[in-house]
Amino acid sequence: MRIAIDAMGGDHAPDEIIAGAIEAVKHLEQGDEIILVGDEEIIASRMTAKKVRKYSGIISIVHAPEAIGMDESPIDALRKKRGNSISIMTKLASRGKADAVISAGNTGACVAACQMRMRNIEGVNRPGIAVVFPTFDGPVTMCDVGANISCKPINYYQYAVMASMYSRHVLGIENPRVGLMSIGEEDAKGNESVKKARELLKSDADINFIGNIEGCDIFKGKCDVAVCEGFVGNVVLKLTEGLVDGLFKAIKHELLKESLRLVMKFKPVMMRMYQKYDHHEYGGAPLLGVNGTAYICHGSSKSRTIKNAVIAAKKFYTHKINEHIIEHLAKTNVRGTDEQ
Amino acid sequence: MRIAIDAMGGDHAPDEIIAGAIEAVKHLEQGDEIILVGDEEIIASRMTAKKVRKYSGIISIVHAPEAIGMDESPIDALRKKRGNSISIMTKLASRGKADAVISAGNTGACVAACQMRMRNIEGVNRPGIAVVFPTFDGPVTMCDVGANISCKPINYYQYAVMASMYSRHVLGIENPRVGLMSIGEEDAKGNESVKKARELLKSDADINFIGNIEGCDIFKGKCDVAVCEGFVGNVVLKLTEGLVDGLFKAIKHELLKESLRLVMKFKPVMMRMYQKYDHHEYGGAPLLGVNGTAYICHGSSKSRTIKNAVIAAKKFYTHKINEHIIEHLAKTNVRGTDEQ
Repeated sequence: MRIAIDAMGGDHAPDEIIAGAIEAVKHLEQGDEIILVGDEEIIASRMTAKKVRKYSGIISIVHAPEAIGMDESPIDALRKKRGNSISIMTKLASRGKADAVISAGNTGACVAACQMRMRNIEGVNRPGIAVVFPTFDGPVTMCDVGANISCKPINYYQYAVMASMYSRHVLGIENPRVGLMSIGEEDAKGNESVKKARELLKSDADINFIGNIEGCDIFKGKCDVAVCEGFVGNVVLKLTEGLVDGLFKAIKHELLKESLRLVMKFKPVMMRMYQKYDHHEYGGAPLLGVNGTAYICHGSSKSRTIKNAVIAAKKFYTHKINEHIIEHLAKTNVRGTDEQ
Repeated sequence: MRIAIDAMGGDHAPDEIIAGAIEAVKHLEQGDEIILVGDEEIIASRMTAKKVRKYSGIISIVHAPEAIGMDESPIDALRKKRGNSISIMTKLASRGKADAVISAGNTGACVAACQMRMRNIEGVNRPGIAVVFPTFDGPVTMCDVGANISCKPINYYQYAVMASMYSRHVLGIENPRVGLMSIGEEDAKGNESVKKARELLKSDADINFIGNIEGCDIFKGKCDVAVCEGFVGNVVLKLTEGLVDGLFKAIKHELLKESLRLVMKFKPVMMRMYQKYDHHEYGGAPLLGVNGTAYICHGSSKSRTIKNAVIAAKKFYTHKINEHIIEHLAKTNVRGTDEQ
């Protein structure tokens, strides 16, 4: 398997990205390769500094003269910077020279480039980003968290199918319970798109659809898959990060009122929590629905995140998630267009 | 000031509601009255059991023979149960017999009844529910959290005006910073309604508009007011509750791995956090934009919540929030219809 990684994307690129690629090597199998995409000179010099000559044959470099900034307008940047690392990385996939792509760079540019170059898999109208929330009761896969901010009913349905396949075949949850994010449990709750999506989801007996869920249910062990439109999912994702940080800050503040000793005693607990519930552990978010394996990592990705993204991408690829999605969508009667 | 309270609404009605009304008495001023609306016999017997005869003249009862269940369809229930406590409570307001209404009952029914009976204040197209998030960096007022799930640009704008007035005159924040909930800071981020709302907000120099905010920013001290549509706000509100509960559960689990003694040491910290960040402390959410003072409390309201809602409603009324909103909307050039 050949995994192309955007070496120039992310707040800590290229150093942490390169370090992550190196850390990932020990998780590779015979014949696996990593392709670092970015400024050849910069990558080569960093690799030399890290004394990783021994990885020749496993890690290679594909030159990309330009990089897209984290705050650049995706479409403008993709148009103007023809030699950017994200475009070149996705081109490798579309030309059959890479089996997976990974980037911690500009999310909008990644999604757009993957859609443009790799195209959608059969039966999928719009791809969606799936994020795994590590909750107390197990991992919850939420889709979409930002690829599609004006969701049509058919999109919700396909997100449910795709995230279910991911939950089952990558996370090992046998019959994932799918919840539709709304503002109340009753059938009548939600906007028009959500209500129509509910009908589509109900009509497919091969989805373990449990009905509407509310914001609180994600952390209550009620579902394994949560389906929502990208606007809502993105707010949820970022809110969760902000709230966890805010709460730990408040706890520390309160503990300090007790004693410094108590803070120190609490520290290992906090560290364990961070390790367990940290999104870096999940390595990034798969872009479900594109014709290939694509992982979008958080802008703050460290080497550990990239290493874990490589492991996740390998699982995605070897467990043939896209084939499972195609198979499910081929046999369902639920059809629709983005106009519905 | 006469405050009508729906004695039949909420998971712990009528006992906790009646207890809350009694607790609130010591926060009333000369001439203030509380009107408990609900089944006269039940309320009277509970009051007798609580030996509160001494409150005659302060607490009175208005009979309502029916009650709307928490899970009933709001519009159906309001239509079929003509004698329900929510309708009778809002009728008291519309006939000038109550200056404020408070209910912990069916939220949808409350919003609909308030709109129908009390009407909107001048210049307001749609009312919105404002919730105060007690964050580490101070209270953040978010509007709307569920009254309006298909927001037009003019609604966002008016929510910003109304929540700003609330933040300033009830919470005492002099020049509240208003953020528009979106999925990125840049101007181009967000759906069409949000982008148009952004232009309306920018055009009013009397609003301290700081631009787009993301989910994480609510807990980062970046804004005092967060504006969003009801669907998003409702998910945020419920997610926050679920996540805080989930996190404390996880912390307890981890602490128990260390020692029971550590759990006991952490307990007072946890209690203080709960007290400080607990939504019961804020007493409920004002329904901004209706012609009167209306507070909608959480279904799980305890006596403390109701007491605090009475205190908040008194502040809302005496600080003339509606007059401030009318004044702001009268002088702004920002106009629009729900069709825009």
